[in-house]
Amino acid sequence: MIGRLNHVAIAVPDLEAAAAQYRDTLGAQVGAPQDEPDHGVTVIFIELPNTKIELLYPLGEGSPIQGFLDKNPSGGIHHMCYEVDDILAARDTLKAQGARVLGTGEPKIGAHGKPVLFLHPKDFNGCLIELEQV
Amino acid sequence: MIGRLNHVAIAVPDLEAAAAQYRDTLGAQVGAPQDEPDHGVTVIFIELPNTKIELLYPLGEGSPIQGFLDKNPSGGIHHMCYEVDDILAARDTLKAQGARVLGTGEPKIGAHGKPVLFLHPKDFNGCLIELEQV
Repeated sequence: MIGRLNHVAIAVPDLEAAAAQYRDTLGAQVGAPQDEPDHGVTVIFIELPNTKIELLYPLGEGSPIQGFLDKNPSGGIHHMCYEVDDILAARDTLKAQGARVLGTGEPKIGAHGKPVLFLHPKDFNGCLIELEQV
Repeated sequence: MIGRLNHVAIAVPDLEAAAAQYRDTLGAQVGAPQDEPDHGVTVIFIELPNTKIELLYPLGEGSPIQGFLDKNPSGGIHHMCYEVDDILAARDTLKAQGARVLGTGEPKIGAHGKPVLFLHPKDFNGCLIELEQV
């Protein structure tokens, strides 16, 4: 069911500092900040040869990232995103096997303009997993 | 400096259950358990089309994973590993810019038989980063 690892998302306390570190210290290809008001985050994508790192920073009130940063002031790995061919089929298969899908269970449109869903971390070894239809 | 994302490592409280979940529920290609006594872990690699997931479980007394699982009983994302061409050059560049290298600062041989180093999470947005020379 799952295909490529689309990205690993890191919540960071200072978006500009984190972007500069990946660009200047780690020598990676770092994109421009993008505001995603529907998701309450500003994101910067780092392009590695085989996948992406997504730097996440809170945007606006009630950002889902703020609570994570309150608990983890240095930042931390927030979620990982696996690609699937058919997100509704993937969701139904997972639910039939007892996995919990977050929110309403209906896909939202993610940072790449594609349908995404999140799975409950307690059902997946403490990892927040995003599924993205590609 | 950094190249491909070699793997994302997930510490899990039940290695067989996690492997079965990735194989049966998520439909991924899951390898056999490998004991790594020098690192205090048993690992299972999951092969995705573009990278790997490494499931980590404590092996023996004083495993570096045990403390993480004590704090995170459901498991969690433990570290991410970036590939570098020259690990000593990477280490020296990072140290010159103030980043802390864990342990003695000398590379150890990792789970793939290649030299590896770990960087201090507080210097990298709360993420434990492994560098592996490929």
